Amino acid sequence: MNPPAPPVSAAGLMGEISFDAAGLVPVIAQQHDTGEILMMAWMNRDAVVETLETGRVCYWSRSRAALWRKGETSGQVQRLVELRLDCDGDTMLALVDQTGVACHTGRRSCFYRAARDGDWQVIAAVEKSPDELYGER
Amino acid sequence: MNPPAPPVSAAGLMGEISFDAAGLVPVIAQQHDTGEILMMAWMNRDAVVETLETGRVCYWSRSRAALWRKGETSGQVQRLVELRLDCDGDTMLALVDQTGVACHTGRRSCFYRAARDGDWQVIAAVEKSPDELYGER
Repeated sequence: MNPPAPPVSAAGLMGEISFDAAGLVPVIAQQHDTGEILMMAWMNRDAVVETLETGRVCYWSRSRAALWRKGETSGQVQRLVELRLDCDGDTMLALVDQTGVACHTGRRSCFYRAARDGDWQVIAAVEKSPDELYGER
Repeated sequence: MNPPAPPVSAAGLMGEISFDAAGLVPVIAQQHDTGEILMMAWMNRDAVVETLETGRVCYWSRSRAALWRKGETSGQVQRLVELRLDCDGDTMLALVDQTGVACHTGRRSCFYRAARDGDWQVIAAVEKSPDELYGER
């Protein structure tokens, strides 16, 4: 999985991706060398093309209804190492190199709650405060 | 992440999960010890409860509109090691112990296509033929 994937043309790849009724496909982001699952988010067609062509991961923000260049505000960018597609073509796996933390709470991974003893227990510490990530700079 | 999680009561956990308009939540299945991403599928409320209470992963099949006890037909079951929830509560990560292969094509992982040289290249071999998985037994 190294060296980093060079920018590639997306044209030949788009036809195999099954976007849902909203024009979106879920994308799992995994740290390429450690295997950590960092987050899951969504891409539309433009986000897939931008991600492949720039080598920097771009999602579609459903809440803002806009392209979401990961790290644009927080500095916590994801460099694309390799994009993978599942058997049905309706889910993607992005192997990435994550700068800093992936989660807006300041944790490395968004999946920081584990079902233990009948409750969701927080199993990861905040590494950067949200103020540091999103505050005035 | 060992030993395997014992069956737990699901009641206290359900309130934090945000199911979508169709009553579903996406679940990423990751092999607990190797970090491999095996597949992504969906659970409804009943599937989450059954998974937590039995320790064996049960999804909701959107195509069949029925509970899908992974491995029921193929024998390729997933034992739940730990269930995790993301920051927004709308995606889950299941750490599992996968018997055999996760993909209906007979490959270990559903994510066997990689964007390389402008095309989707198959990067994993079939380990069990679909005939062996789904044929007459």
